[in-house]
This record gives sequence, structure tokens and C-alpha cells, in this order.
Amino acid sequence: MARLNAHPSGRHFLQIPGPTNVPDRILRAMDHPTIDHRGPEFQALAKRVLAGVRPIFQTRGPVVIYPSSGTGAWEAALVNTLSPGDAVLMVETGHFATLWKKLAERLGLQPEFIAGDWRHGVDAAQVEARLRADKGHALKAVCIVHNETSTGVTSDVAAVRRAIDAAAHPALLMVDTISSLGSIDYRHDAWGVDVTVAGSQKGLMLPPGLSFNAVSDKALAAAKGARLPRSYWGWDEMLSANANGWFPFTPATNLLYGLAEAIDMLMEEGLDAVFARHARHAEATRAAVRAWGLELLCLDEAGYSNSLTAVLMPAGHDADAFRATVLQHFNMSLGQGLTRLAGKVFRIGHLGDFNDLTLVGTLGGVEMGLALAGVPCRQGGVQAAMDVLRATATGAAAVRRAAE
Amino acid sequence: MARLNAHPSGRHFLQIPGPTNVPDRILRAMDHPTIDHRGPEFQALAKRVLAGVRPIFQTRGPVVIYPSSGTGAWEAALVNTLSPGDAVLMVETGHFATLWKKLAERLGLQPEFIAGDWRHGVDAAQVEARLRADKGHALKAVCIVHNETSTGVTSDVAAVRRAIDAAAHPALLMVDTISSLGSIDYRHDAWGVDVTVAGSQKGLMLPPGLSFNAVSDKALAAAKGARLPRSYWGWDEMLSANANGWFPFTPATNLLYGLAEAIDMLMEEGLDAVFARHARHAEATRAAVRAWGLELLCLDEAGYSNSLTAVLMPAGHDADAFRATVLQHFNMSLGQGLTRLAGKVFRIGHLGDFNDLTLVGTLGGVEMGLALAGVPCRQGGVQAAMDVLRATATGAAAVRRAAE
Amino acid sequence: MARLNAHPSGRHFLQIPGPTNVPDRILRAMDHPTIDHRGPEFQALAKRVLAGVRPIFQTRGPVVIYPSSGTGAWEAALVNTLSPGDAVLMVETGHFATLWKKLAERLGLQPEFIAGDWRHGVDAAQVEARLRADKGHALKAVCIVHNETSTGVTSDVAAVRRAIDAAAHPALLMVDTISSLGSIDYRHDAWGVDVTVAGSQKGLMLPPGLSFNAVSDKALAAAKGARLPRSYWGWDEMLSANANGWFPFTPATNLLYGLAEAIDMLMEEGLDAVFARHARHAEATRAAVRAWGLELLCLDEAGYSNSLTAVLMPAGHDADAFRATVLQHFNMSLGQGLTRLAGKVFRIGHLGDFNDLTLVGTLGGVEMGLALAGVPCRQGGVQAAMDVLRATATGAAAVRRAAE
Amino acid sequence: MARLNAHPSGRHFLQIPGPTNVPDRILRAMDHPTIDHRGPEFQALAKRVLAGVRPIFQTRGPVVIYPSSGTGAWEAALVNTLSPGDAVLMVETGHFATLWKKLAERLGLQPEFIAGDWRHGVDAAQVEARLRADKGHALKAVCIVHNETSTGVTSDVAAVRRAIDAAAHPALLMVDTISSLGSIDYRHDAWGVDVTVAGSQKGLMLPPGLSFNAVSDKALAAAKGARLPRSYWGWDEMLSANANGWFPFTPATNLLYGLAEAIDMLMEEGLDAVFARHARHAEATRAAVRAWGLELLCLDEAGYSNSLTAVLMPAGHDADAFRATVLQHFNMSLGQGLTRLAGKVFRIGHLGDFNDLTLVGTLGGVEMGLALAGVPCRQGGVQAAMDVLRATATGAAAVRRAAE
Repeated sequence: MARLNAHPSGRHFLQIPGPTNVPDRILRAMDHPTIDHRGPEFQALAKRVLAGVRPIFQTRGPVVIYPSSGTGAWEAALVNTLSPGDAVLMVETGHFATLWKKLAERLGLQPEFIAGDWRHGVDAAQVEARLRADKGHALKAVCIVHNETSTGVTSDVAAVRRAIDAAAHPALLMVDTISSLGSIDYRHDAWGVDVTVAGSQKGLMLPPGLSFNAVSDKALAAAKGARLPRSYWGWDEMLSANANGWFPFTPATNLLYGLAEAIDMLMEEGLDAVFARHARHAEATRAAVRAWGLELLCLDEAGYSNSLTAVLMPAGHDADAFRATVLQHFNMSLGQGLTRLAGKVFRIGHLGDFNDLTLVGTLGGVEMGLALAGVPCRQGGVQAAMDVLRATATGAAAVRRAAE
Repeated sequence: MARLNAHPSGRHFLQIPGPTNVPDRILRAMDHPTIDHRGPEFQALAKRVLAGVRPIFQTRGPVVIYPSSGTGAWEAALVNTLSPGDAVLMVETGHFATLWKKLAERLGLQPEFIAGDWRHGVDAAQVEARLRADKGHALKAVCIVHNETSTGVTSDVAAVRRAIDAAAHPALLMVDTISSLGSIDYRHDAWGVDVTVAGSQKGLMLPPGLSFNAVSDKALAAAKGARLPRSYWGWDEMLSANANGWFPFTPATNLLYGLAEAIDMLMEEGLDAVFARHARHAEATRAAVRAWGLELLCLDEAGYSNSLTAVLMPAGHDADAFRATVLQHFNMSLGQGLTRLAGKVFRIGHLGDFNDLTLVGTLGGVEMGLALAGVPCRQGGVQAAMDVLRATATGAAAVRRAAE
Repeated sequence: MARLNAHPSGRHFLQIPGPTNVPDRILRAMDHPTIDHRGPEFQALAKRVLAGVRPIFQTRGPVVIYPSSGTGAWEAALVNTLSPGDAVLMVETGHFATLWKKLAERLGLQPEFIAGDWRHGVDAAQVEARLRADKGHALKAVCIVHNETSTGVTSDVAAVRRAIDAAAHPALLMVDTISSLGSIDYRHDAWGVDVTVAGSQKGLMLPPGLSFNAVSDKALAAAKGARLPRSYWGWDEMLSANANGWFPFTPATNLLYGLAEAIDMLMEEGLDAVFARHARHAEATRAAVRAWGLELLCLDEAGYSNSLTAVLMPAGHDADAFRATVLQHFNMSLGQGLTRLAGKVFRIGHLGDFNDLTLVGTLGGVEMGLALAGVPCRQGGVQAAMDVLRATATGAAAVRRAAE
Repeated sequence: MARLNAHPSGRHFLQIPGPTNVPDRILRAMDHPTIDHRGPEFQALAKRVLAGVRPIFQTRGPVVIYPSSGTGAWEAALVNTLSPGDAVLMVETGHFATLWKKLAERLGLQPEFIAGDWRHGVDAAQVEARLRADKGHALKAVCIVHNETSTGVTSDVAAVRRAIDAAAHPALLMVDTISSLGSIDYRHDAWGVDVTVAGSQKGLMLPPGLSFNAVSDKALAAAKGARLPRSYWGWDEMLSANANGWFPFTPATNLLYGLAEAIDMLMEEGLDAVFARHARHAEATRAAVRAWGLELLCLDEAGYSNSLTAVLMPAGHDADAFRATVLQHFNMSLGQGLTRLAGKVFRIGHLGDFNDLTLVGTLGGVEMGLALAGVPCRQGGVQAAMDVLRATATGAAAVRRAAE
């Protein structure tokens, strides 16, 4: 049969905003033989990852781990806490916020969608105004995306928390942190999030196949009365089995091996160092974009994503043709524009297991690809990024040392 | 951190009835770097596995692949085809049939459960009688387990099909083939099954994390009118994306690498040779049980499972204490008795990537463990199994050659 | 191209007396990316393995590690210590002793070969007599094989040391421990060995590709005056580079990764537990051979090897035809008879990463293969081996616990 | 124990001129279980690699494969063909030529060393003059290094062949192609080389541990009369065993797995495409060096190496301090200056499994590291390299397509 992973010479640059480049340590961990999921060795593994994953979410509460993609964790968040016909407030930050809203509709919920231009994050003031207007507390939840993977815009979750509190509204706060967890500072407890939705294949550096719900006490209380049908996604059976290191159905053992390794890697580096690394690489990437004279999709400086950068193509140039050129000539995958952004933007992932020289190579591929594809722009982006990286290299080393 | 897979010297014998011993070929395939799930290389992989998996189900129709455990595929089968409050006919063949029934209840269905003693398969005559009595066609589906992993009893799916036809009843036929697919002959099309439920971690020899629905035209038609809420499990979006080699959400790429390899392995060996291998190992295992003077849980000779054998402990002896002895002294995991069988039976898995000498070692561990645990029984089980294996070795080699 | 490792279903049983079944832990360790052999990370690795390997040889002195097969370490032992035309005393214990003698001849040495019948170990009295007769001390070295891999006979190295001492002879003592190191108690320092020759692919559980010389002070002194030409094998450059964690030429980095893991594994289990494990498996194997009514090649009970067992075929039956039957029907490789033993014996390897159930499977394959090949012998070997294993299982568990 | 490969986040850049970055395909191939080196499966593997490796050397004659580092293959070339005291002509192109000469001395040969400045390749005219002067044909061999790994200078082997022929001298021509094979066009047969010396860890993309001698008929004839002692390195036993797919001693099985994969990879890409890729990357690297205003060690444009580039540090700046800065801040290993070049040059490896973006990252690390280390030079090297890569990208793609 055809060979798996039949790339040209050298290492493929997987610079989409996830799945990210899975480090060898994690691939090797996943390569261990599968064990009895009802035996003592598995039990120790389960307890290790169930406890170890909490600090990544910055929570002391439970984190549910599903064998599923992140979309499953979206569904889990909703079906565990809501009842048929419930109204929820969602914010149109981009493609993934829109998908989550469609999912809510398919489940029989009534999502109310605050319109957005896909170039800004959540406007907390708007959320507050809407909640204040909801005197009858018909809205049962506010659902937002922390880092919109389709646009490279991050929203201020703490501000949304404050908005809900200011409105004295009882709605649950649910946050999708799929492309920010383990890359951008995210605080489930401190920000008062009720359900955090995450996946394995971004900052956690795993292949896709695991998803997560971090769950607050308030969410657990809501689950007791929630009437959407649920079984696979049910927190109750999961949490009672997890308490002893078990799962109510066969867990994805080998992905849990990888998760154990990922937790070790993030803790060894130190979360602060991880966040600083991502911030520095994002800043260098934006310096490159500016030097090229191209436009960032994100219009809000405070919302620049540290895990990916979406770049607008000059009018008349097709982002997908450019990406195909880059893949063909430079063995690099870049992220495409999704739905309304199709052909109009390309996205550079700079998250996960990543470093300065891989970023330089990545930006080099973009710069050369732009030229090859005949896209009108300036050279000098790589140089500009290197200026940032060099100027901050000593500080970055100090952060690494401090974390050791 | 603690080492993953910290067994004593030598290879661990994972002889539970799944997850099974994952062959090196598959572990290595899963160890390839993750790729862009929206790129041309992934598209080729997806088309390959989506087409390649059909012959394993012996179907020409679509097979939906979920990133989830097998339990998810149970849920998917129901939510895609049924509406709130629908009645379904299920048969109590054992623990897993009971779990599926509970899952149906949690989803708001009305399962009617034909009682069973956990020692026999489905009685097709009972099914026919019940369907004949259902003049109004209130029952929307008949759900059975092909191979009850908790008991080692296989049911005659073709007979159930004939029963439904004889009753001229329009109910859908749904079959759980989680622990039989790729081990025991299973024919989705020929047996007129509407939804087949399967998982990755048994005969497919993968780690857990993928599940499957093979779907008939009738099931697809039923899905159009079904009103249970569904999104993650929805066949519609999945099948329309699959048609071009895509998935509606991020697929479990590295498990799909393993699936591609598993399909190759099964096809290289030949399904008939695979089934014959499992049948021969099961027969040898039963010869050992008889020689020990122990009792098989399965009371119906026609229903002996070819993928696992459940053995009753003599009264007064705890199966779990015996299993712990085997794990401690012989580095082998055996399957436990579940719920009502807890402590009363142990289960020997002899499915997946397996061969004669591993079976001999497995049975040796059981025989020595029984003696160490002070369980009253005879020696000679290994010898009896070897007699079967030796007597049939030449025939087995001929089957292998024919398949080459 | 053709697939590597294209075995039938299930795990291949590699029961030759080395290379042994490489454990997953070591394969995974070797799978790490190669690093700069002149950088600080390599230096730490080199210091770790150079120090860590000494306890395995039970020496406090230096151990030289070559990228080569064990044959290279034979050559190294000789060329570092001897001069053209030097006489050395060697003992014909079997095929490998004979090969070492031929190698000495090719290097221009004058080996004197004490004849043997390939069924006994070294007769220390004969050695002593010969040395006493060598008044002029023409013999510069005594070279023996600790565990003759071709015959399954172990020699008493301490007795040979005493013989040399009793003769007050200055000859160096060189010992090949290729198939005993890490399996059978071997004491470089306590037994006064001057050069120990070892390889990676037996008790060290690595693939082939590394070899070793443990070297006494006396051997180092001899090296100063030795005049056989040498460069690759030269201890001087190696030891001076090793002192700082370097090698005089590019080392086999990935095999050194595996060596680091192998050292960890042996030390975690504990050398005494490792030796006891091998002794127990060897005793069980011999019980099987006796039960079959076959003859052990080794005629000296004190010399029974704990790492392999060579078994004589009944007259008129070809061992290689039998081995081919076993390979074809039972996916197991057994060791062949070498040169004068070709077709007359088969060898069962029971060393390295091994356990009770793998041994039971191994012996099952032999027993069934003998029957299939029409070799006249009794059944019951597996049963006899299980009797030994079961009777000693509790003691073996105690040894494991004590080592933890 | 300490973790193997404990690098900071992201992939380590191993940009020394070998060992090179081992591709995943080869690491995975080496990760297969070790097999019986006397069984039919191994025999097929041996035949495959023994035949498959010949086209890489561009020879139809035999290639001997040793379990050893490349230094062993230097020794093998000499001991198989020469006798004690033989004179050989060697050329001081750099550190490795000097090491080979020292090795010859240690073996008791009389190497005559044509002095060099470590900045030029072999002067064929000088060789011719010396051979013409050797009326008595005392010189038995001419030994040269095709690509001096210590200096980044390639010599014209065909010119040396013509020089020997012009002098009508019977000396053997021996060539070290350790850092050129599989990277720079090398033609054992067409250039009339008698012994080619190679290693696994450069263009063959394997870890270190295998070495090679490609051998001409003339060399084989010389071996018959050669009197240097040899056994491990002896071609005679090796070639006679190889003829049937065997080895005279245990081969390094897992490295042979990797070799099989490496051969497939080189043949799939096509040797011409491989050479063109290396040439293009080398040209881009030199463009960077020129842009930085630094000096290439190589003074002969025709001799620029395509597999590595050695760069002189400005006076007063320590190359090793610079390299340490790069390793610390940018997770990249660069090659050091050796012996007389210590501290004066650094070497950039751009060979093996490599591509444009990895080169851009590599040069970015050099450029930023130079600035961080306070080395006076210009920016713009990465830009200059990208200009080359971009301008030639379309042509490179055409070469790749043609090879498919």
C-alpha cells in the first residue's frame, strides 16, 4: 500500500494552527503497548493524568477527558448543563464560534448570536448589556471562544466574567480554549469559568483524539437539572468512575500515555515559560507580517493571538493558491481561510512544540512562497522577525533558566 | 515521573478480550508525525481507510468512523435513527447488552429487554414472536450484541434477520460487533444489518479511540426522520464530508494511520484465514478448559465465541483473586467477571494479533495460576490445547498459504 | 519494497541464543534522534553508560565500548595485548572457541588448542598442567569462553583463575562472556580476568552492533609492550577520550541510548534477580528436555548453561528440518547446530528479556514441532517445565520483591 | 535516570556535518524487532541491502558492510590490501586525512604525506608528479578524502584517477567518501576507485554504526597477497558469506533495517535529485556567508563542498564560544573546528535529510548567534540565502518531478 507520510526530503513543517507538530517524546510515549484498562497499572496512569491535567487548566476542580475530538467537548459542555429549548448567548468571533452555535441549534437549543466581523474578540460590554436586558434570566449560558483559531483573535475571558457579574446574571460561562490551552495564559478557576472546552492537538502537543471539559461546581449543579439527553458525554458516570482511576467506557489508552508525557513536558518547561515563548514567537511573526506590508486579520491589538497569526491576502490574490505553492515548493502546510475567509487569509500556526529556528524557517517559507506566487509585498519579514528574536533571546533564556 | 509500562521482565501477556495486543506494525504506523487534516496527503489517507474498512464489515455501503470509544458508536446508532420515546427491542445477553440498554434509556428511548441468563445468545424465535405481537410496529429497532464480550457467547445474526423478515416487521436491525469484527465472520450486507457498531481495540488490533457505524440505506432513510438531538454523531455531515476525503471535525489522524495498517494486515492474511485462526485458537482454549475440569460460562455450543472464553470458577473460589495471582506471578492480564459475574468468571481473550505459541503461554499461565491460587482442578489443559493445535497445524498452514 | 519483519499473525518468538528479543523499552530508546557526538548532551550520555556498564561486568575498572559485533571485541582483546607470533592457550569448548582460535591464527598468533568434545566446559586441571609445563612462559594468554553459545555449556572461570595462580603463570586470562553477561553470574574483578569480551545482543537485550572489552590493570600494562598493529581497536586512544566522555571516532549513538536503557533495566531488576530468573528458566527447560526423553548436549551437570539449552536430535532426524517446521508452523526461530553439530542439535535460547509464559510458549512450540516433524519422543515436556515454574513461582516473586 | 534527548521546546537542529538528522522513516525502520540473523527473513534483508547499496556507490562490484564506525572502514581498506611497511601516498587535505594517515602509521605502513593548507583539495598534478618519480612503484596506494569534513573542501577524484593513469602507476586508489556519499556525486566504477570508504551517519541518513568498503577487482587481487594481519576486517570471509545473504559474524541487524529504508529513500528521490538538492543548499549557504562578510575556509571555488560549509571566524573571536551561544539560545548544534582549526572555524552541515526551510532556520540561527556573540559581521545572510532558494525553487521542483 501507499506509504504513510510520503513527504519530500527533510522534516515537514506543519504550521497550521493545530494539529501541531507532535514532539518525538509524545509519539514515543504513545508507542507503548496498550494495557488492561481495568488493571492497577492503568489505574495509576489514570490518576496521574486526571490530577496532572488540572494545573494546565489552572483549576483545582475536575477535568473530564473524552476519547473524541474537540467538537465532542463542545457538545458535552452543552448537553450536561442545558435543557431542550434553552437560550444561550454566543458571540460570533469567527468560524469556530459559528460552528459551536450551529451545534447548539442541532441539539435543540436556542442560541442567540451577537454578530461580529471575524476581526475582533468578544465585546464584554455588549455581553453585559445583553445580560442586563435579560431580566428573566432566560439565557442559561454565555459561550465564547478564548482564541478563535479561524481568525487569530483572542478574547478577554476575565472581562466577560466581570460583565456577567456586573449584570448579576446567573448564566453559566463556557469557554472554548481549544487553540489556547497550553499556549496562552488561561485560568479556569480565577476567571470563574464554568465549563472549559479543550482538545489534545494544539498546545497539548498530542495528536487529535482527546477532548476535555473542566467543570466548576456551578456547572455540576446545573447538570443535575439539565434535561438534554446524554450518555456518552455524561459527566456523572465519568466523574464517579474517575474518582478511583477508572473510566465508564474504554479510554483511549495510548493517547493517555501521550497526555502523561505532555503534562510532564509543560510542567518541566513551566507554564509561564511556555506562555512567554508563545508570546515572543507571535510578536516576531507579526513583525514579519508588518515588514511584508501585509495586513493582519485581527484589528484589535489587545486581541492578537499568541498561537496563530491570520494574514489577509492582497486583493486579487488567492490565499489557497499561495498555500499550495508553499506546500509544493517548501514542504510546509499553512492554515487556510475558513468559510467566509476562504481564499482571503492564510494562517500561520506558531504553537505547541516550537522554537526560534523553526519559526525562522516557517516565515522564510511564507516569504519565499509569497514571492513565488507573485503576491505583491516586500521582502524583509524574516529579517524583521529575527530582529525581534535576537533582541529578546537573552531574556527568553533567562525565563527558561528560571523555570528549571 | 513514573515510567509508563513498568512490567517485569519479558513481554506482558494482555489476554483480556480487548484491548488486544497491538502489533508493532500498528504502533509504528501510529508513530508517524501528525499531518494537516485539510491537506491532500490526509485526503488520500481518508479515502484509503474509508474504502478499505468496508470489506472488513463485509459491506459495500458507508462506514462512519468516529474519534470515540465503542460506546460512542452505540449512541450514534441510536441518535441517528430514532426519536424521543421510541421503543426498541433489546436482548439481555450479558453486561454489554445491558449497558447498551441503559444507554438507550438515558437517551430517552423505551427499550424493551428480553431477559436472559448471560449464558446463551439471542433466541431468534423469541425475537420473532415479540415482533409478530407488535402489530402496530411500535418497536423501531432490534438491537443485539453479536459477540457478548462479558460472557463469550456469540449470537446468530442471520437468524435474527430471518426472524424479523418472518414477522414482516419494519424494525431496524442494529448489531454490536465490537468484539467480533475482524475475528469472527460478520456480514453487514448479507445479514441485512442496518447499523453495525464496532470499535478499534479488538479484532482491528488498534488501541482504543476509534469507533464505527456501518450504515444501510434503510438506516440512512430512517435518519432523515429521526428526532433525537445529535450533532457530533450526525451521519449527515460526516458522510457528506467523507465523500471527498474530509471529516466535519478534526479526525484522530494517528489512529487512522493505525487503521490503514490494520486493514492491510487483515487483507494480507485474508479474512477467511483470520476467522479460521480465531476458530482454531478458541477450540484449543475450550479443550484446555475441559481438561481442567472447569465449566464454560457459555451453555450453547453453537454460540461458543471464537474471540474469548469465559470460564466459571468453582464455587468458593474468587476469580479476581486468581487473576491477581496470575498478574503477579505470570505478568498476564486476564479479563474479569463483570457486574453479576464479578468474582465468578474469568475471561481469556484469544483475539487480534495472536498465534499458537502465545496461546500456549496464555493457557500455561492460567493452568499454573489455578494451581497457585489453590483452585481445585486438573492439570493437562495446556497439553489438551497443544493436542488440538498440533493436530490442526498442517491445515492451518494450508489456509495461510491459500490466502497468500 | 518488501516489508521488514513480515511475520504471520502474532509476535515472533526469537528463541535463538541471541540476538534476543529486544524489549520495547530499548527499541524506543534507540528511536531517539541522533545527537552531536561532540556536544555536552552526548558527553553526559557517554559518562552515564561508561560508568553504568561496569557493575554489569562486576568490575571497577574500565570497559571499552566498540561499535562492532562481538567478534571485534575478540580481536581487540588480542591485538591490544599481544605481539606477532605470541603463543596463547585456548580451549576447544565448541564452535565459538574454535572461531576465536582461528581469529588468533589470522592475526599471526600461535594458539595452542586443548582439544574438547564440544560437550564439556574447560577442564581447569588441564589448563593448570599445561601452564606448569610452560616453564619459559611462552604462553602469553589463556583464552576461554564462559558460556559456549554453540553447546550450552558454561565453564568455571574462577577455577581457571585458580589454575593459573596455582601454576604461578603470568599469562593473561581472557574470557568471552558474550552469551553470559547479564544472564549468568560473571565477575571480572573477583575472578581476576584480564580481558572480558562481550556483545550487546544477548543478556544486554540490545540489537547487535556494540561490543565490549573490560580491561584489568595487568592487561593495560601488557598493552604498552604489545606489538600487533592496531588502531581502531586501540585501548589507549579510547580510554583517554572516554575519560572526558568522548570517543576517538564517531560512536554508535543510538545503540548507546539503548545501552543506557538496558543498564537501567538490569539494575532495576537487580543482577541477582536477573541471574535467578535465568537459572529458573534453564532448569524448567531441562525438565522439558528430560520429559521428552531427548538428550542434552551438555554432559557436565555443573556446566549446564542458564542462557541456552542445546538438545541432541535422535539419530536419523535432521535438526534443521525440525527447526524449519517450527518456523513455518509456529512462528518461532530456534538456534541451529553449528559446523560439526549441524543438523544434530537445536538450541533453545532462554535469555534476555524473557518470562515464564514466553518460555511455556517456546517449549510448546518445540514439543508440537517435534511431533509434527515426526521426531520420536515423548509428550509432557511443557507439563514438566510448568511443574518447575509453578513450584518455584513463589520464590521467584520473593526474589523480585527483594530487588525492588 | 536522566532523560535521553532533553532538549528545550521544539525540534533540535543537528547541523553538524554528520551525524545528520535521522529521518523518522529510518528511526521507525530501526525500531523493528531484531530477527534471527541465520534465518530466511534475514537472508532476504541482507541480499536486499547488499544489492541495493551498490548503486549508491555507483558500482556494480561488491560493497562490504561492517558493524563499525567509518574509522573501521579506513582500517579495513588498508589491512586488506597492504603489507607491513608498505609505502602509501596520502594528501593532507585536513583533519580527517591526517587521522587516516596516523591510522596507517599505527598499522605499520609508511604513509608519505603531501602537505596541504587545509583550505584546498587534492592537487592531482602533485600526485602525478610524485607517482612519476616513483619509478620502482614503491607506493602501493594513493589515499585521498573526497570531501574533507573538517574543511568543507571537495577533491576531484576523477582528476586523481587520470593522474595515476598518466603516470602509468599501479598504485591502488582509495577514497574516503564518508561525508559525500549520498550527498555529492561519487562514482566508484567510473572513476576507477579501488577501495571506497564510507559510513552510515551522513548522506545515508542513518545513525552511526555501519561502515562500508566498495571494492574493485584490482583491490580484491591485491588482497590475496596482502600481509597485514586481519580478521574482523577480512574481505574474503565477508564476501563469501555475503554471496548467500549471510555474514561471517553477527551483523548489526537493526541498522541494516535502517539501511534498507535509506536506500529506498535515496532511490525514490533519485540520486541526481539528491545531488542537485545538496548543491542548491550549499550555494544558498555560501550566499549567506558572503552576505555576512565572513570568509569561507575553502579557497578553491571548484572545491566547495555541497554537504557542509566551514566558515572562518574574524580574528579575536572564538568559534566555540559562538557555537555555545547558538546551542544555548537556538537549540542548534554546529560543527566545531578540529585540531589546528579549533576555535577558528565553525562548520554548517547541510546534508542528509534536509530541506529549504530547515536551511533557512539553520542560517537564521547562525546569523542571530553571530550577533548575540558580538561577532562583527553584516546581517542579510538569511535574506541572501532565501534569494538563492527562491530563484531556484521552480527548477528544484522540476528536478523532483522528473525523478518521480
